[in-house]
Amino acid sequence: MSKLTDVPKRILIGRALRSDRLGETLLPKRIALPVFASDPLSSVAYAPGEVLLVLSIAGVSAYHFSPWIALAVVVLMFTVVASYRQNVHAYPSGGGDYEVATTNLGAKAGLTVASALLVDYVMTVAVSISSGIENLGSAIPFVVEHKVLCAVVVIVLLTVMNLRGVRESGTLFAIPTYVFVAGVFIMIIWGAFRGLALGDTMRAPTADYHIKAEHQGLAGFALVFLLLRAFSSGCAALTGVEAISNGVPAFRKPKSKNAATTLAMMGLLAVTMFCGIIVLAMTTKVHMAENPAADLLHNGNPLGSGYVQNPVISQVAEAVFGKGSFLFVVLAAATALVLFLAANTAYNGFPLLGSILAQDRYLPRQLHTRGDRLAFSNGIVLLAGAATLLVVVYGADSTRLIQLYIVGVFVSFTLSQIGMVRHWNRHLAAERDQAKRRHMIRSRAINAFGAFLTGLVLVVVLLTKFTHGAWVALLGMCIFFATMTAIRKHYDRVSEEIAAPEGPSDDLVRPSRIHSVVLISKIHRPTLRALAYAKLMRSDTLEALTVNVDPAETKALRAEWERRGIDVPLKVLDSPYREVTRPVIEYVKNLRKESPRDAVSVIIPEYVVGHWYEHLLHNQSALRLKGRLLFTPGVMVTSVPYQLASSEAAKVRARRRQDWSAPGAVRRGPAQVRKESSKEPKEPKESPASKG
Amino acid sequence: MSKLTDVPKRILIGRALRSDRLGETLLPKRIALPVFASDPLSSVAYAPGEVLLVLSIAGVSAYHFSPWIALAVVVLMFTVVASYRQNVHAYPSGGGDYEVATTNLGAKAGLTVASALLVDYVMTVAVSISSGIENLGSAIPFVVEHKVLCAVVVIVLLTVMNLRGVRESGTLFAIPTYVFVAGVFIMIIWGAFRGLALGDTMRAPTADYHIKAEHQGLAGFALVFLLLRAFSSGCAALTGVEAISNGVPAFRKPKSKNAATTLAMMGLLAVTMFCGIIVLAMTTKVHMAENPAADLLHNGNPLGSGYVQNPVISQVAEAVFGKGSFLFVVLAAATALVLFLAANTAYNGFPLLGSILAQDRYLPRQLHTRGDRLAFSNGIVLLAGAATLLVVVYGADSTRLIQLYIVGVFVSFTLSQIGMVRHWNRHLAAERDQAKRRHMIRSRAINAFGAFLTGLVLVVVLLTKFTHGAWVALLGMCIFFATMTAIRKHYDRVSEEIAAPEGPSDDLVRPSRIHSVVLISKIHRPTLRALAYAKLMRSDTLEALTVNVDPAETKALRAEWERRGIDVPLKVLDSPYREVTRPVIEYVKNLRKESPRDAVSVIIPEYVVGHWYEHLLHNQSALRLKGRLLFTPGVMVTSVPYQLASSEAAKVRARRRQDWSAPGAVRRGPAQVRKESSKEPKEPKESPASKG
Repeated sequence: MSKLTDVPKRILIGRALRSDRLGETLLPKRIALPVFASDPLSSVAYAPGEVLLVLSIAGVSAYHFSPWIALAVVVLMFTVVASYRQNVHAYPSGGGDYEVATTNLGAKAGLTVASALLVDYVMTVAVSISSGIENLGSAIPFVVEHKVLCAVVVIVLLTVMNLRGVRESGTLFAIPTYVFVAGVFIMIIWGAFRGLALGDTMRAPTADYHIKAEHQGLAGFALVFLLLRAFSSGCAALTGVEAISNGVPAFRKPKSKNAATTLAMMGLLAVTMFCGIIVLAMTTKVHMAENPAADLLHNGNPLGSGYVQNPVISQVAEAVFGKGSFLFVVLAAATALVLFLAANTAYNGFPLLGSILAQDRYLPRQLHTRGDRLAFSNGIVLLAGAATLLVVVYGADSTRLIQLYIVGVFVSFTLSQIGMVRHWNRHLAAERDQAKRRHMIRSRAINAFGAFLTGLVLVVVLLTKFTHGAWVALLGMCIFFATMTAIRKHYDRVSEEIAAPEGPSDDLVRPSRIHSVVLISKIHRPTLRALAYAKLMRSDTLEALTVNVDPAETKALRAEWERRGIDVPLKVLDSPYREVTRPVIEYVKNLRKESPRDAVSVIIPEYVVGHWYEHLLHNQSALRLKGRLLFTPGVMVTSVPYQLASSEAAKVRARRRQDWSAPGAVRRGPAQVRKESSKEPKEPKESPASKG
Repeated sequence: MSKLTDVPKRILIGRALRSDRLGETLLPKRIALPVFASDPLSSVAYAPGEVLLVLSIAGVSAYHFSPWIALAVVVLMFTVVASYRQNVHAYPSGGGDYEVATTNLGAKAGLTVASALLVDYVMTVAVSISSGIENLGSAIPFVVEHKVLCAVVVIVLLTVMNLRGVRESGTLFAIPTYVFVAGVFIMIIWGAFRGLALGDTMRAPTADYHIKAEHQGLAGFALVFLLLRAFSSGCAALTGVEAISNGVPAFRKPKSKNAATTLAMMGLLAVTMFCGIIVLAMTTKVHMAENPAADLLHNGNPLGSGYVQNPVISQVAEAVFGKGSFLFVVLAAATALVLFLAANTAYNGFPLLGSILAQDRYLPRQLHTRGDRLAFSNGIVLLAGAATLLVVVYGADSTRLIQLYIVGVFVSFTLSQIGMVRHWNRHLAAERDQAKRRHMIRSRAINAFGAFLTGLVLVVVLLTKFTHGAWVALLGMCIFFATMTAIRKHYDRVSEEIAAPEGPSDDLVRPSRIHSVVLISKIHRPTLRALAYAKLMRSDTLEALTVNVDPAETKALRAEWERRGIDVPLKVLDSPYREVTRPVIEYVKNLRKESPRDAVSVIIPEYVVGHWYEHLLHNQSALRLKGRLLFTPGVMVTSVPYQLASSEAAKVRARRRQDWSAPGAVRRGPAQVRKESSKEPKEPKESPASKG
């Protein structure tokens, strides 16, 4: 099946996969954690730094607020995790926030959540890759010197990888994620040991710098506002928490319980890492500024535009492990890798959400098909394009991109939690069992608090970040919302237009007779086959039709027709301008005019070829004619294909394309409960045919 | 028919034209001359200057060779005109050089000529527009300061105009061409009068400059080579002479005689203008250099890169009429306009030649259709793209572009004339009438001399211009040649593959039965219509097929099926991955496997929509399925269209597209001798059906 000539294609499009391609194994918790949590865990690589950056506006003295902000983030994280543990139990289907909002708050809320999530996926790619590049850059200077270029290259690589339909394995996610988590924990423990037991003074590379406060001695409302802004930035640590609630079907049984446990583990890990890094940053005196070129001073002089501010995690690692040490490099690499994996989760999530939205007819219906290559490709290219745009516009600067990030996350958090409150209210109204009721009331309380807190954060984020870029994210959400609403409206309108009436209607009067016309250009195998099939169809009348484009050819055709004794009458249409389409259309229209109750069946012999350039050389007239005929009422158009030898190539290609494995398969879990249906398609299962 | 919303489209694509759209009037000589001769006549705007430019390499003293070079060009012009007068009489069909070469020298020679002509059309656009911009620039400084931009803008304008299918009128060509010719003649006569009768000393703006010879005191072989190079450049005056031989069918009767007369008039005009301009340039002491910034000296100093060297025709006009005078501006404008018209002729010729080549299967067959919009559009866009590339690469510098120009022209001249000699030889062998024989022998002598001289010039051009850019033109010719050969090979291979065998063969065994399958997604008007049509077809078995993508929907479908009492069995295919294509393909393959002698007819209800974005929302699954089914042997695919209300828009659009008038109609003459067939298509003429 795979010839030598296929090699270049195979390199580009990926190897033909076997039919049992999803390889659906359910995930144990130890694998599910890295698969779903690479996004939230990786965000500790940039979130602590963002807090310090904002605080630096009020000068280094404001840094002492950072533990309090970390505490607020921890409280929020626990609240969100606790809330989503309720979601996971109540909605084990994996529909996630979109399902919760739609079910409980209605279609518009659901669509808002969906728009927010779509924007969020774009931001995940842009922020994670930019941050990954910055972390990689702390070990490899070249990368940070060509930030935008490197970020775009990584986006392109991820895109190609996902378009190829790379087969995910849990291990792929597990190793870098666990290396990253382990690295951060070793750093925290070793840092604590050095500081407390050995009494070492660990100093970050920026410890000697001074921060020129943009607003010295900030107090009162302004200070509160600044602290809220710092908190908003710290909330970046929460992005991706909802991922597990979308992935419940992929868990081993008991699915919901395992998912809830994984969620808790994830929350605990994230919080510990976040706080550990903040504390180490304070201890090692990391100094960061929003605008380091001007606001960071060394011996009283600004550092200038040549200075590259490394991420807080890398500065801390340098202080704890030593610059260029083995552990420092490993941690930098693992951080970058886990951030790229986080970006990759968006590549899975975006088309997956698209397919759910398509099911509800907010997006083109073909996206509905699970693992449809074309649909996934479109989604992936759209995602990659939007992310690239953002990366280029914002210069791959994670700090500036984060301003756009958190809005979408908290829109969906808040609406989802409000939805959950409604969910419990509804269930409480029906439930009589007191134990269950108590449980529900407890869940409702958790979700209500979650809704309150995330809603509050949303307001804070909007207030503090709107002018810093959050408006861009809101605009993106509006565009998604409007587009999806328009698509849904279109589908609804069409569905109304084509609704079958009860009883017979004018439109559906069954035509009384059928008049078949076979289009003939020359006598060759394709036309002979078309004639044979047409005869077999036993329509009421049958004729062959040719257009006289070249009188000599037409004469030859007619002679051969008679010589071969073909028992179908041949009609010749004149065409002074050597056109094909117009005379045929006019003729068919005329047939319809003469006997309006007859339907006309136009049978077109077609070549099936294997390469795109061969398409340019064949069937163009047939295609155009078909296109025009479809607009003519009362006409049906039949293609009788003739497979040329070269069509084999396309067949192999098509088969391979169909055996393609959609990215994100691991996260999605098996297609249906009936396991046997995921095996190699054999005899299709047939339902008993119903008789009318 | 034309609604208000159509206005923007109408502006862009052009107004819907009536069906008798070619407006075929035969051309009288006075109109035919400007229509066909704008290209050769306009070349006198740049050819004399090119001669001076090359001579200037040997210093101003070499200028005294220019009358001799002009004389050589005149001799060549008369030879070529005399030769083509023979072509016109011998081949009145308008096939031009391609036909002459193919008929007499074989397919490869014909294809070489065709490749040369295609390259030539590209060069005509590039050179004429660049030169037009330079002439316009002599009156409007802005234009010459933004040469490349202006040239590209003109190309874009011409392209849009031709894509719109502008209706040509002879007048459009006649006015500027006659104004240009009249202007040049007035200039020559007025110049002669001022110089000879009034004794005025007319001085060109560059009369006071000195030329720094790159090679002072050139002699012997080097001088001869330089003179030959100058002559080659002067040969640019001959480009476009063959146009009339392509246009014989457009002439009034007696076609050949009128065409021959027009050819002679054109030659006479061109030669007089060419010589007049050379003489005036010598009289007014025009000084030009290939590299004016360095080699033109004013008071001993180079003029520097800011200096813009105006074309010789504009310098002479300035000397004769005075800078900024009315006649000077009119002549500059008319020169630019006639050059743009010359470029426009390539826009007509390129797709026209394409259609002839398509007839011989060297190009995709659909180009064969006369005035097929799509085919013309592709040709026009290809031409414009190539010309734009050349203009940008060569900085819209007509002098540099001309180096590429003349190769193609002389390749086709030479091959055509050799072909004509063969033509006469063949006819002489058969002809017995002595008077006719004498005539033929005379014609053969003319063509033989033409072949000799143009062949000599071709060698000279190749020798003197190869490194200056002629290799680019040759490369272009090779690319066209190779592509067309490959296309022809492909068509030949396919035609062999599909040739109908005499007598029955395995391949054509008529299938014994037909099994029809109607694809159903839901019950609505389109599916009900498809079912009704399918029943009417009376195939041997008929069933409805649905894919169980969503169990709830499938259940509802089955219930409604029974409720409505549809008397066709409904089969349900399972699809665990919500795929549509694969289960259907597998099912059809299985049907074929079970009874290999049966054919399967798959009937697909299809929506017909009006806008491209609606296509994205509908039929995608159907389209993909159709694409795959065509690769399955023994299957025929029938579309039963259902026209949605929005399809009206597309219908109107399609009709308008068909009523489009192809550019170049005037030059091409009527389609067929039978005049009545060009009228509004009424009842199509039917030939008596032949019975086998």
